[in-house]
Amino acid sequence: MTDADIAALDAADPLADRRALFDLPDGVIYLDGNSLGALPRSVAARLRGVVSDQWGEQLIRGWNDSAWIDLPARVGDRIAPLIGAPPGSTVACDSTSLNMMKALTAALALRPERGVILSDSGNFPTDLYVAQGVAAMLDRGHDLRVVLPDEVSGAIDESIAVLMLTEVDYRTGGRHDMPALTKRAHAAGALSIWDLAHSAGAFPVDVTGGRADFAVGCGYKYLNGGPGAPAFIYVRPDRVNAIAPAHAGWMGHAAPFAFEQDYRPVDGALRMTVGTPPVLGLAALDAALDAWDGVDLRAVAAKAAALGDLFIAEVEARCDAFGLKLASPRDAHARGSQVSFHCPEGYAVMRALIAEGVIGDFREPDIIRFGFAPLYIRYADVADAARILERALRNELWRKPEYAVRAKVT
Amino acid sequence: MTDADIAALDAADPLADRRALFDLPDGVIYLDGNSLGALPRSVAARLRGVVSDQWGEQLIRGWNDSAWIDLPARVGDRIAPLIGAPPGSTVACDSTSLNMMKALTAALALRPERGVILSDSGNFPTDLYVAQGVAAMLDRGHDLRVVLPDEVSGAIDESIAVLMLTEVDYRTGGRHDMPALTKRAHAAGALSIWDLAHSAGAFPVDVTGGRADFAVGCGYKYLNGGPGAPAFIYVRPDRVNAIAPAHAGWMGHAAPFAFEQDYRPVDGALRMTVGTPPVLGLAALDAALDAWDGVDLRAVAAKAAALGDLFIAEVEARCDAFGLKLASPRDAHARGSQVSFHCPEGYAVMRALIAEGVIGDFREPDIIRFGFAPLYIRYADVADAARILERALRNELWRKPEYAVRAKVT
Repeated sequence: MTDADIAALDAADPLADRRALFDLPDGVIYLDGNSLGALPRSVAARLRGVVSDQWGEQLIRGWNDSAWIDLPARVGDRIAPLIGAPPGSTVACDSTSLNMMKALTAALALRPERGVILSDSGNFPTDLYVAQGVAAMLDRGHDLRVVLPDEVSGAIDESIAVLMLTEVDYRTGGRHDMPALTKRAHAAGALSIWDLAHSAGAFPVDVTGGRADFAVGCGYKYLNGGPGAPAFIYVRPDRVNAIAPAHAGWMGHAAPFAFEQDYRPVDGALRMTVGTPPVLGLAALDAALDAWDGVDLRAVAAKAAALGDLFIAEVEARCDAFGLKLASPRDAHARGSQVSFHCPEGYAVMRALIAEGVIGDFREPDIIRFGFAPLYIRYADVADAARILERALRNELWRKPEYAVRAKVT
Repeated sequence: MTDADIAALDAADPLADRRALFDLPDGVIYLDGNSLGALPRSVAARLRGVVSDQWGEQLIRGWNDSAWIDLPARVGDRIAPLIGAPPGSTVACDSTSLNMMKALTAALALRPERGVILSDSGNFPTDLYVAQGVAAMLDRGHDLRVVLPDEVSGAIDESIAVLMLTEVDYRTGGRHDMPALTKRAHAAGALSIWDLAHSAGAFPVDVTGGRADFAVGCGYKYLNGGPGAPAFIYVRPDRVNAIAPAHAGWMGHAAPFAFEQDYRPVDGALRMTVGTPPVLGLAALDAALDAWDGVDLRAVAAKAAALGDLFIAEVEARCDAFGLKLASPRDAHARGSQVSFHCPEGYAVMRALIAEGVIGDFREPDIIRFGFAPLYIRYADVADAARILERALRNELWRKPEYAVRAKVT
């Protein structure tokens, strides 16, 4: 594509106005919004207000006067449309891992006669760790069965209690067919839990139409809530009141301030909340969600697909000589909003690329990964990133010894 | 006491300089720091830096460049001296309720042959809910035995798996003898979990000398980390590596960024962490902990005792005619840094008092509760509060109908 072609794509982008809502550093092409979303401009002012005007002035009264107590439900209700969930079905709380643990303990309790948790090797490891921890804790012989991503469908049978998958593979970007797999799970009498960490905000998710029983997801990737932002959990409304939460805490109680001695869960998704809500994190996430107001998720999906297609085309045209191999599905409908390549010396290559101003990330064993947050990434960014990647490879910029040294967080 | 006596107490207060570290609203006497600590001046600037300079500029690189990844251990190590814990034994993460759940599942797994969780009716209800949720989830017939506070010692026998107590009663302020009860629990072969929500920052806690097996506590009370701040968990160093965490997540893994499929917990207290750390909340708590630098905890305990004694004396001298009855131990050594009274129409009285500028809180069924955060409460505040309470009772200011209407959060 010529520069003029690229400029025309950006000029015609219906989401182009969103970029101004983000505070992006100069000289950086940020293709890691699938790991940590960029800073929305609304966040700093919101946090200042929460700290100085609310906490500082209202003190304890902020729980009522600034409705801090309602943040888990309120922020959940703002995430709900992004995942096709109805109001009252989604709450923002805790971490994705802990929400997965809540969903899994609840699902296993609803299928007491079954012993298998089915997942795949493309799942983010923390979900697998959660399942291992739960299985060991329950000590009832639950078996975590991990198959290859394309073997999942065939592995669903009547031994399965719970199908637990991340919709979009964190390494390859490969995307499962949530409705089809859930349907198959239900036909076999199993429940489904979907981790939407790399889905929510990347394309329209439809937990309602897809009949997902539980979904969890992340506040700090495409939702831009900041590092370690509160996560979310969705429970199908016709199932939630059948759940006796294993994670029982006062915020999930029907009358938290009656200080009753016995746990009595409130109706609805709020019963999945446990401890005191993290107000600073929830307020930042709430402010970040402003960037989604009025956004057509079909436009998001279309742009995600087009950005990825463009990146694949540009990288393959430019970097063919350097041993890169596409690790993501070539078909945009089969992937999330990210593109990954197998790359020899991938860790050092990514370090060099970051030094050149293109931020992606590396995933073991040899994956260089690029995410395209459709709200703030331009077509020009993607084309420039491919050019800079070519230059880094051609000039072997990755050979600096310091780039071989692993950082604590990769 | 005369005004001059009170002024002399404040003039001689070795902690008097701490108050300037807090941003307290004008016209308010804040006696609810045991529910939500006041705003330390250091927090706003720290959050600005984390948001704008770190998240905004460094983006994903903040995990390494600003050492976000180390915050749970780093903040834990700053809390450790407040509870008598060695470095590496305490981490800041999640909520108190969830940390209690981690401690309880770990403790029960260490005592598989025993079936009783012993607690008391003075425990904060969420801890009891956690125990009920865990017992129901495990479904192995665990019995949560809740006795009166003064019956705890006598109820410890060889059926007890875990003694789970909050050191300071949230209503009365009555304080358990942690070393003595833990010793008794150990003699009976039981483990102990201490909830230090109303202890940490109120007086010197000694989990090491007291031989506590686990402790959890709250970041937003005396530690002033802000509404819903991350909590903490301590595990006795000689026990921690024997724990196979039921709450297994990538942050507790020995090599989180190797993305191994099998959970392999890291050595030490970090294995009690689960999901991605909440950076905004941890940074605020970290900044708040600056107020504790160089503080002599014996001076904190002495001031807490003196403030409480003064308040009891002033209230009893002034309010004897209005049916108030001390709900807290009269002996300062037997209570935390709070004083409570049974009070007819207590809810409305507290609402009226708040309208008059004295912020305490109400706890069911009839308790008006006043906390004295020794870092920022003056003797003059306590004397003034008693005077204002007297005036509110004498003038029956609580009779306004709107004060009878319960707020969502009490």
